[in-house]
Amino acid sequence: MTTLTGHSLIAGARVPGTAGTTHGVSPLTGERLEPAYTLLDVDPVGEATAAAEAAFPSFSSLDPSAHAAFLDDVADRIDALGDALIERAALETGLTSARLAGERTRTTNQLRLFARVVRQGDFRGVRVDPALPDRSPLPRPDIRQRKVALGPVAVFGASNFPLAFSTAGGDTASALAAGCPVVFKAHNAHPGTSELVASAIVDAITAAGLHPGVFSLVYGPGAAVGQALVADPAIQAVGFTGSRAGGLAIVRTAQSRAVPIPVYAEMSSVNPVFILPGALDGDIEALATGYVASVTGSSGQLCTQPGIVFVPRGEAGDRFVAATSRLVDEAAGQVMLTAGMARAWREGVAAREHLDVEVLARGAEGAGENAPAPVIHGVDAASFIADDALQAEIFGAASLVVRYDAADDLTAAAGRLEGQLTATIQLAERDHALAAALLPVLERKAGRILANGWPTGVEVGHAMVHGGPFPATSDGRTTSVGTLAIERFLRPVAYQGLPDALLPAPLRDANPWNLTRLVDGVLQPGGAA
Amino acid sequence: MTTLTGHSLIAGARVPGTAGTTHGVSPLTGERLEPAYTLLDVDPVGEATAAAEAAFPSFSSLDPSAHAAFLDDVADRIDALGDALIERAALETGLTSARLAGERTRTTNQLRLFARVVRQGDFRGVRVDPALPDRSPLPRPDIRQRKVALGPVAVFGASNFPLAFSTAGGDTASALAAGCPVVFKAHNAHPGTSELVASAIVDAITAAGLHPGVFSLVYGPGAAVGQALVADPAIQAVGFTGSRAGGLAIVRTAQSRAVPIPVYAEMSSVNPVFILPGALDGDIEALATGYVASVTGSSGQLCTQPGIVFVPRGEAGDRFVAATSRLVDEAAGQVMLTAGMARAWREGVAAREHLDVEVLARGAEGAGENAPAPVIHGVDAASFIADDALQAEIFGAASLVVRYDAADDLTAAAGRLEGQLTATIQLAERDHALAAALLPVLERKAGRILANGWPTGVEVGHAMVHGGPFPATSDGRTTSVGTLAIERFLRPVAYQGLPDALLPAPLRDANPWNLTRLVDGVLQPGGAA
Repeated sequence: MTTLTGHSLIAGARVPGTAGTTHGVSPLTGERLEPAYTLLDVDPVGEATAAAEAAFPSFSSLDPSAHAAFLDDVADRIDALGDALIERAALETGLTSARLAGERTRTTNQLRLFARVVRQGDFRGVRVDPALPDRSPLPRPDIRQRKVALGPVAVFGASNFPLAFSTAGGDTASALAAGCPVVFKAHNAHPGTSELVASAIVDAITAAGLHPGVFSLVYGPGAAVGQALVADPAIQAVGFTGSRAGGLAIVRTAQSRAVPIPVYAEMSSVNPVFILPGALDGDIEALATGYVASVTGSSGQLCTQPGIVFVPRGEAGDRFVAATSRLVDEAAGQVMLTAGMARAWREGVAAREHLDVEVLARGAEGAGENAPAPVIHGVDAASFIADDALQAEIFGAASLVVRYDAADDLTAAAGRLEGQLTATIQLAERDHALAAALLPVLERKAGRILANGWPTGVEVGHAMVHGGPFPATSDGRTTSVGTLAIERFLRPVAYQGLPDALLPAPLRDANPWNLTRLVDGVLQPGGAA
Repeated sequence: MTTLTGHSLIAGARVPGTAGTTHGVSPLTGERLEPAYTLLDVDPVGEATAAAEAAFPSFSSLDPSAHAAFLDDVADRIDALGDALIERAALETGLTSARLAGERTRTTNQLRLFARVVRQGDFRGVRVDPALPDRSPLPRPDIRQRKVALGPVAVFGASNFPLAFSTAGGDTASALAAGCPVVFKAHNAHPGTSELVASAIVDAITAAGLHPGVFSLVYGPGAAVGQALVADPAIQAVGFTGSRAGGLAIVRTAQSRAVPIPVYAEMSSVNPVFILPGALDGDIEALATGYVASVTGSSGQLCTQPGIVFVPRGEAGDRFVAATSRLVDEAAGQVMLTAGMARAWREGVAAREHLDVEVLARGAEGAGENAPAPVIHGVDAASFIADDALQAEIFGAASLVVRYDAADDLTAAAGRLEGQLTATIQLAERDHALAAALLPVLERKAGRILANGWPTGVEVGHAMVHGGPFPATSDGRTTSVGTLAIERFLRPVAYQGLPDALLPAPLRDANPWNLTRLVDGVLQPGGAA
């Protein structure tokens, strides 16, 4: 097993920090976990970004097979961390070993998926408009286009997915796949987990003989190191998953640079669920069970947790609410990720209860200080439409039931919503007309629209969108999960009239990487594996 | 011929403004052109954006054949404006009829190219990850992805391309092709040209039976109407071509909205040209002729005008400079677009001459007040590297020759450059090693890299990139010319588990639009025309 050193890992070297220390803390017991983690001052951050910049030319032009093999090797090495990784992550986060094992599988499968993306190469966006020397009135020159990596990327780990949205999570995987070196700012809620995963990445870099600046892990106090990272001229893009306040602070820094850079911040979402009348023709118990599981799973600490559910008034809706309330009443709190998050959850619930809401159900407090009782509140659609404060996200096991009378209520409420990661419709065939009216509204509000499912559980595939209009993310044109996420770290460059020998490999006449190309507007499939 | 009314055109209606009037002015004679154009107050701008929002649902879901036919019809109607359009544009801009006729062809061909893009449909980005009901440990739901239009778009016309970057120019064409209604803010330097083209668009909207809010043309005083447009909650993206100050003001407004929106501002570029030693082995006269033509064509008022050229020291470089100087000495100024631009050019030249530069050649003043003498300045590479003020763009017929000694000078100077639309290398085979060292630097600085050509003259095709890192544009991940420009106005949405009947047409099992789709990561070519 890898020994934890408690230091930042800059371009392959352990770098002790001089700005104090932090410890992982068990949210279940409050126990301080060893070792202490030394925190960096702002200065050494520049060593990490300079190393990333130095690594960029070679890493961004790596041969696809070597590039993909590196990503596969990172995955293998994370898997090889074995029980030690799961045990440390469970200690630091309070999440169950089963959940963490699943999350590791997701994380390493994601790296392997991006390895296939790198081998396949469509993301390079090759376009060729051949010369037309005889065109009148002017000949057309040969013009070719490909996408290039933006440059070094700063990634901020999230607390709630210590593996899949952290050190080697989706942002890191997609940035590395794009050819961008990564400087990763660890989340201080799981420093040991971060070091274990970072060590696996660094070992893969060493084994592949890559420039050590391809990846660095930095620990920092408060926001200073993170802000310095975003402000560093070498950094060309930022990936972030976390709070709205944290995301917006990063956006502001990025925009106020001499050369502004894109920030991909996944920030907040209440993931509305619209239960249409026909959905209650079926198994109401099952529907309620699905809802409560989605609300309370992982203690509700999921970006796609359904924080608002619209339920029709009337007897069937009452039965759904009753079933839901019974399940929540019977539920006990699960330990949250940190004491701070449990405190923020309690404050959010208290703030909601100062508004015009009813407490429909409240479960029992769980073990320890940080496992608050899950709670469901109720409100009518008119009140919801009238008060945007009811849309506030409460990160954890809480949800708001909004009772509606008519289809108009639903479209009006949907129209009031802020941007969301997801929107869900529960429906039967008799609801199709209503759903068809709702869908165009939801398309403008959310990155993913579900029917007859629950939004928690985000597939990592080609078609996934984990994104959405502001404030769900800072850039609604993107996704942070799925293969499309690689596009965030690329930009197109055109080459006009270059001799074949000077063209980058993807654009050469011989097409040595066997890429699919758009030639004069027509797709010519490549032959890459 | 269409009669000019002098009013804004909001959702098909002529709307007189109450905030004063403006006139087109002949930059050649200073003559005030009739009619007067009434300027809108801020309030009626909201009518245009509300109409655009009302038009969005139907326009963004238009059948591809109707959508494409509309774009083709706009092109046909602009062509049908005939000589009247060219004459008015020539009067308002001082550009030659030949240049304007070419620009119209480019503009209407661009609309027709986007019509083909709409029929072909790859921009819809359809991805299908089919359900895997038997997957272990959890089944995979059916997930499909497509790109949707962002919403109403504000477009700001540029002065220097009264057709191709104005009312029905690249931004408007690509936004309309994406399914976004457009509110177009006219450039007051060519109000009549704008009204003629807008009338053609409005007639096409009427003929197709589209919602009249699909397009509006607004005239406004100063920046107030433009800023109101960018701040309007209905507007979801902005296209702009113009000055850095103008572009940055729009960016700031867009970022300070409650819901920030993307701004695609094409702002400033000096388009460096690197003449490598071997390029002077050949026809030096021809090289100098190409350079001077590119510097002085359209009075130098082109975004891609080569404002800086690196020339090797030594006898061959001296001969190039001598040939260039002779050509410039013999050249006369061409009338610039407006008196203000001629004034700004003179100020820019005066500012440069306060720096450590030498005047290598100065031509003759042209006809009228607004045709300043073209000028070429010279400086050595060390001075250039030491003083960023020498990179300032002078919009018009001026260029700076930077003499270099060694390859190191070139890579150092290239590394100091701001983001550019283009970078050009003039080279022979013996320069390949030097070019290969320069290319990775230039790739990070520019959107388009040329060899042995001149950057002016921007092909409208699939492979073109007219974009580049900040400050060339406000979003270096995009292009404002070529078919990739459509991506600026789209965002991805995923649909999970939707019944086929509720899926948007591009995602249905039957694939009614015959689109190419990425199914489980594998491209399945469509059959659309």
